[in-house]
Amino acid sequence: MEPHNNDVNHNDEENDVENLGESDGREEEKWSSLSERNMSMRMPLLRKRTNTTSQIAVIGANACPIESLDYEMIENELFKQDWRGRKKVQIFQYVFLKWGLALLIGLTTGLIGFFNNIAVENISGFKLLLTNKLMLQGSYFKAFLAFAGLNITFAAAAGSLCAFLAPAAAGSGIPEVKAYLNGVDAPSILAPITLFVKIFGSVLGVSAGFVVGKEGPMVHTGACIANLLGQGGSRKWRSALLWRTFFTTAVVAIVLRSFIQYCWNGKCGLFGQGGLIMYDVSKEVSSYGSYDILAVIFLGVIGGVMGSFYNYLVDKVLRTYSVINEKGPSFRVLLVIIISVLTTCCAFGLPWLVSCTPCPTDSANECPTIGEIGHYKSFQCPSGSYNDLASLFLTTSDDAIRNLFSNTIIREFQMSSLFIFFVTIYFLGIVTYGIAVPAGLFIPVILAGSVYGRIVGRVFHSVSVLDTGLFSLLGAASFLGGTMRMTVSLCVILLELTNNLLLLPLVMIVLLISKSVADCFNRGVYDQIVKLKGLPYLEAHAEPYMKHLVAGDAVSGPLVTFSGLEKVETVVHALQSTGHNGFPVIGEPPFSDSPELCGLVLRSHLLVLLKAKYFSKERRLSGRDILKKFSPSDFAKPGTGKGLKLEDISLTEEDMEMWIDLHPITNASPYTVLETMSLAKAMILFRQLGLRHMCVVPKSQGRPPIVGILTRHDFMSEHILGLYPHMKQHK
Amino acid sequence: MEPHNNDVNHNDEENDVENLGESDGREEEKWSSLSERNMSMRMPLLRKRTNTTSQIAVIGANACPIESLDYEMIENELFKQDWRGRKKVQIFQYVFLKWGLALLIGLTTGLIGFFNNIAVENISGFKLLLTNKLMLQGSYFKAFLAFAGLNITFAAAAGSLCAFLAPAAAGSGIPEVKAYLNGVDAPSILAPITLFVKIFGSVLGVSAGFVVGKEGPMVHTGACIANLLGQGGSRKWRSALLWRTFFTTAVVAIVLRSFIQYCWNGKCGLFGQGGLIMYDVSKEVSSYGSYDILAVIFLGVIGGVMGSFYNYLVDKVLRTYSVINEKGPSFRVLLVIIISVLTTCCAFGLPWLVSCTPCPTDSANECPTIGEIGHYKSFQCPSGSYNDLASLFLTTSDDAIRNLFSNTIIREFQMSSLFIFFVTIYFLGIVTYGIAVPAGLFIPVILAGSVYGRIVGRVFHSVSVLDTGLFSLLGAASFLGGTMRMTVSLCVILLELTNNLLLLPLVMIVLLISKSVADCFNRGVYDQIVKLKGLPYLEAHAEPYMKHLVAGDAVSGPLVTFSGLEKVETVVHALQSTGHNGFPVIGEPPFSDSPELCGLVLRSHLLVLLKAKYFSKERRLSGRDILKKFSPSDFAKPGTGKGLKLEDISLTEEDMEMWIDLHPITNASPYTVLETMSLAKAMILFRQLGLRHMCVVPKSQGRPPIVGILTRHDFMSEHILGLYPHMKQHK
Repeated sequence: MEPHNNDVNHNDEENDVENLGESDGREEEKWSSLSERNMSMRMPLLRKRTNTTSQIAVIGANACPIESLDYEMIENELFKQDWRGRKKVQIFQYVFLKWGLALLIGLTTGLIGFFNNIAVENISGFKLLLTNKLMLQGSYFKAFLAFAGLNITFAAAAGSLCAFLAPAAAGSGIPEVKAYLNGVDAPSILAPITLFVKIFGSVLGVSAGFVVGKEGPMVHTGACIANLLGQGGSRKWRSALLWRTFFTTAVVAIVLRSFIQYCWNGKCGLFGQGGLIMYDVSKEVSSYGSYDILAVIFLGVIGGVMGSFYNYLVDKVLRTYSVINEKGPSFRVLLVIIISVLTTCCAFGLPWLVSCTPCPTDSANECPTIGEIGHYKSFQCPSGSYNDLASLFLTTSDDAIRNLFSNTIIREFQMSSLFIFFVTIYFLGIVTYGIAVPAGLFIPVILAGSVYGRIVGRVFHSVSVLDTGLFSLLGAASFLGGTMRMTVSLCVILLELTNNLLLLPLVMIVLLISKSVADCFNRGVYDQIVKLKGLPYLEAHAEPYMKHLVAGDAVSGPLVTFSGLEKVETVVHALQSTGHNGFPVIGEPPFSDSPELCGLVLRSHLLVLLKAKYFSKERRLSGRDILKKFSPSDFAKPGTGKGLKLEDISLTEEDMEMWIDLHPITNASPYTVLETMSLAKAMILFRQLGLRHMCVVPKSQGRPPIVGILTRHDFMSEHILGLYPHMKQHK
Repeated sequence: MEPHNNDVNHNDEENDVENLGESDGREEEKWSSLSERNMSMRMPLLRKRTNTTSQIAVIGANACPIESLDYEMIENELFKQDWRGRKKVQIFQYVFLKWGLALLIGLTTGLIGFFNNIAVENISGFKLLLTNKLMLQGSYFKAFLAFAGLNITFAAAAGSLCAFLAPAAAGSGIPEVKAYLNGVDAPSILAPITLFVKIFGSVLGVSAGFVVGKEGPMVHTGACIANLLGQGGSRKWRSALLWRTFFTTAVVAIVLRSFIQYCWNGKCGLFGQGGLIMYDVSKEVSSYGSYDILAVIFLGVIGGVMGSFYNYLVDKVLRTYSVINEKGPSFRVLLVIIISVLTTCCAFGLPWLVSCTPCPTDSANECPTIGEIGHYKSFQCPSGSYNDLASLFLTTSDDAIRNLFSNTIIREFQMSSLFIFFVTIYFLGIVTYGIAVPAGLFIPVILAGSVYGRIVGRVFHSVSVLDTGLFSLLGAASFLGGTMRMTVSLCVILLELTNNLLLLPLVMIVLLISKSVADCFNRGVYDQIVKLKGLPYLEAHAEPYMKHLVAGDAVSGPLVTFSGLEKVETVVHALQSTGHNGFPVIGEPPFSDSPELCGLVLRSHLLVLLKAKYFSKERRLSGRDILKKFSPSDFAKPGTGKGLKLEDISLTEEDMEMWIDLHPITNASPYTVLETMSLAKAMILFRQLGLRHMCVVPKSQGRPPIVGILTRHDFMSEHILGLYPHMKQHK
């Protein structure tokens, strides 16, 4: 019965406290300067096992140190005074500020989102028109030079921005944001420079003709804006945000709408309708029979398989690229250029393989399209005919998707072209993600999915009454379900793309099928990337094996505690020698009748006291004086990467000899769990309340009042299964 | 500084433990049979203050006892063995079962929802056609008799069903479901009989021409179905449900779609297109200017005011009705009939007041409509003209809303008719909610709102380019926002009604404005009803004053604890004398070195042990024998209202003298908080983890190991502010 055994050997470990000779030398000599009494108090549980999970993660394309966010309400004397003193006016100001902020964020995001769209449409539009024009003049080589030249220039620009200025801006950014919302903070991820690079890098990357989307980067951009305006701080992301989020969304929607209206009559160059709605089906209810359902199920199953295979390949590619990326910025840029060349060659080379298609006689739009970006690209084809593969490759991905979704022109594409396009996009998408360019995953997946769907639609054309365009929409859905697995949000996104509720049932079915199928093979692409990047993501549910362990089994040492009144030296020393962000404070006689847990003190708060040299010569309680010296705002969480550093604080010898009263800044009621509580249950508490430190207290009295501290890293399976390998069987 | 004072007088109260003479006589004599030692152990904190909040709430139209749900993971020996023993096969079975259940629920709900619609459309359709026919023949009195007769018959039927069979089926049911999801369980609310009455009562009620919706009842129906199929049990509602909920929704959507397709060509009598989409705007983007925005803002503000006034009146009416409802079932039916007569007279009488309108020459649909339910009712009007007010009153509410939303026929309604209709519906809706009939609030509010919107649209017609139908949609939105306040979900609902994303920004704005305005006056109608019904709803956020109190201040006695090995007599006695559902178990020497908190034992589990007479003559630990005698399923939570009762258990004299070992069924790691933790923080823990009992433990050692237990009722403001009236200032 594990827990008991564990209780046993964990008692053994406690005994180590007495005979410190067993603790490793370094630690011992580090502490040898301090008195024996302090010692045993300071580490009731010096364990030889320490948490070896890395505190470093890959953000974008760079390895950065990561911190955990803390949603716990800090209850110390100082802050209590603050609540008491707070006036109605201040509360009102606060509320007003919050909403003003939401408004501002909405406006900015809407603005940037629009700028992003219009820039892409115009830059790549210009590129494509130029190429097209030269092709029409028959100067094919010039066309290629122009096309390749522009592509590679844009690519190199985007790559250099990312590689040299802000590696954190590479990739989609959704994994990082997801991890942030889960409580993992990487200073660089929401930094202003990242925002800047994300915006322009994304525009350049998409214009460079890469098989990448701008949706993921847009999500990251929004997060950066919110962070920049709100100056970070974990308090900003609370479930209470629902109203404000909704409000902000409304603002964004309105800003975009008004811009689109402004652009309606061609005021914005090549930026057409803004293209929010991709698949504009006619209202009439399309009825479907059993054959159609079968076709849809088939579509979903295969889509799921291919989606999960997509994830598998992305994972492999990312591992390969990480080796190159580590070699330095210039190598990253080189990689970007190589992929750009590859993409260019595919896009310009492959259309030569397919035969020309005669223009449809009945079509509304001119064929071949000359002036603007249209359906029918006459590539090398004689007039009166067009190259259907070029019409897919040599256009913006939005237009390509529109073409594929289009239900008007059923036979527009030859099967051969569709196949070539599918294979190319599928693999280009995979090799493109992971290079040092802001790259969204949605567009590649939707593109590949919609071609796949259109192919399936053709196959079932004889038996199914469903429209080919609808098939290609469902194909996109199946691929999205197979890679991303976030059924509900995908459903909403597709609803927004199609603006038709009547399709919802079919879309839902496809999403569920493909997700379920794909789940048999591997996890969603974002979860996979989060894991690969080494971000300590806390799952919503406890792993089964956690039920077989208790909280006491997961705590890892050395546990460093302070007494309520502590030598400055000891504090400084502890801050130097450990990276801990929270330290338990133990109340001792004469200030409490028996040793008891006063609470938890945060590194950042200690630094404020040290900086202000809030010391006293003799070992006495400071009482309420602190309220004269500090205002609660002095302890407020600083914006990302702006905290006090220990290095910035200079202390004299006699400072070191003085005493510091930790009581006023000690969070007197941290959340605690008994050492015998199952790890599963403890983890649920930790996750639900968004904690950073959780105190594990002993079950029986008469022992040191704290057993250890659990942090996010202590719940990571690599840590736990490292300690208890035999638990793998329960995984 | 409050907390300190509280600490003080709460220490006083502890002292009372010693001199029990001060505790009230009844208590004392009740316990006098027991030894002094047990006594002091059993109630370390016998407080004179007890929680007086009622454990009774109004469910539907009846007062019933309520229980709290418990989402905590129970960790006792028995269950631990169960996890260990669980095979892969069993896990698979479990998963399969869960999904099968979701499918079944989806199918059934879809089926019933469809039946509900079709029944209403046909019954009330028949009624209206008959009335219409008689009116055309000029036999007005006969028409009135037919109309009134049918109305009152249906009303009486619905009323009697509710009043005599299942009072819990009265009203919308959303407040009860909301409370259930919050953790308040009232046995009757999800019972099969409630389901039955809800379905038929709703159909009859709507057919009776009441100003009530069938949406709210449908929500309640769905909950009942899920409960019936899943056999209750709190484990069923977990956040993990997202996937399955989504799946179920998909199933329902498909079932409905297929039925609607089946009905497409008039196979379902008068059930037309199923009418999912009410306001079918043309796709073209309607652009709007500053005037329109002003009009919309005005609309939102006034809508918010009227919405909150609606809530105010509903509250008043409900208080009045509760007096009548208490008089007994027959009085309830009487009330229903009175309201039915009132409604009938308004619907049939008021149209006489307005003048006839000449038929539009260009209209597509025939005028006046003869055969089917249509736009133009010739009431008393000569042929070639129609009565616009009758066209609103003498039709199903769905059609009325469609008429009001219609953007084709702008001048169809005279202002006078609109005004009369608005006032009537506004007040009928208010007096109708609360009678013993399943009554949804959506339709009344949408009806009133859309007329209001149409009126405003008329007023602004000169300056605003927005279509009148759109105004009436926004009017409905503003009323919904003003009464219900659930911005996001309302947005989705309206989106489903209109099936057009381009309206979203305007709808969002209106919703936010009206909600914000209304929030200045009172709370949302559902929260109001929840409060009125006395359901102990736990808000998501802690009240400010909770920051000024500590957990220890809110616990209320008498606290009844058991020791690990307990006399059967003591257990039985405690179960008889208290209504508590959880009892702390204290480990004592010789079984533990010092008194310590073993954990928490549940009433239901104790009853199982007592029923099985799992006793021993001498005071010794039973060890693992229990595993032979019981399987974990014996302790599984029974379906609603099927639990063991103490009365069902007969114990002899010598049984009473025996010992019972509570360790194997004790939840060894309940969530605990320090008595000094602020109530706000404790409440967040309680709410987030969905607890039923939370143990409050002492800060300093050497005191009895538990201070008290916090339950849902202890967090209710009436309880806390009752104990600490001076806290009201912080409210």
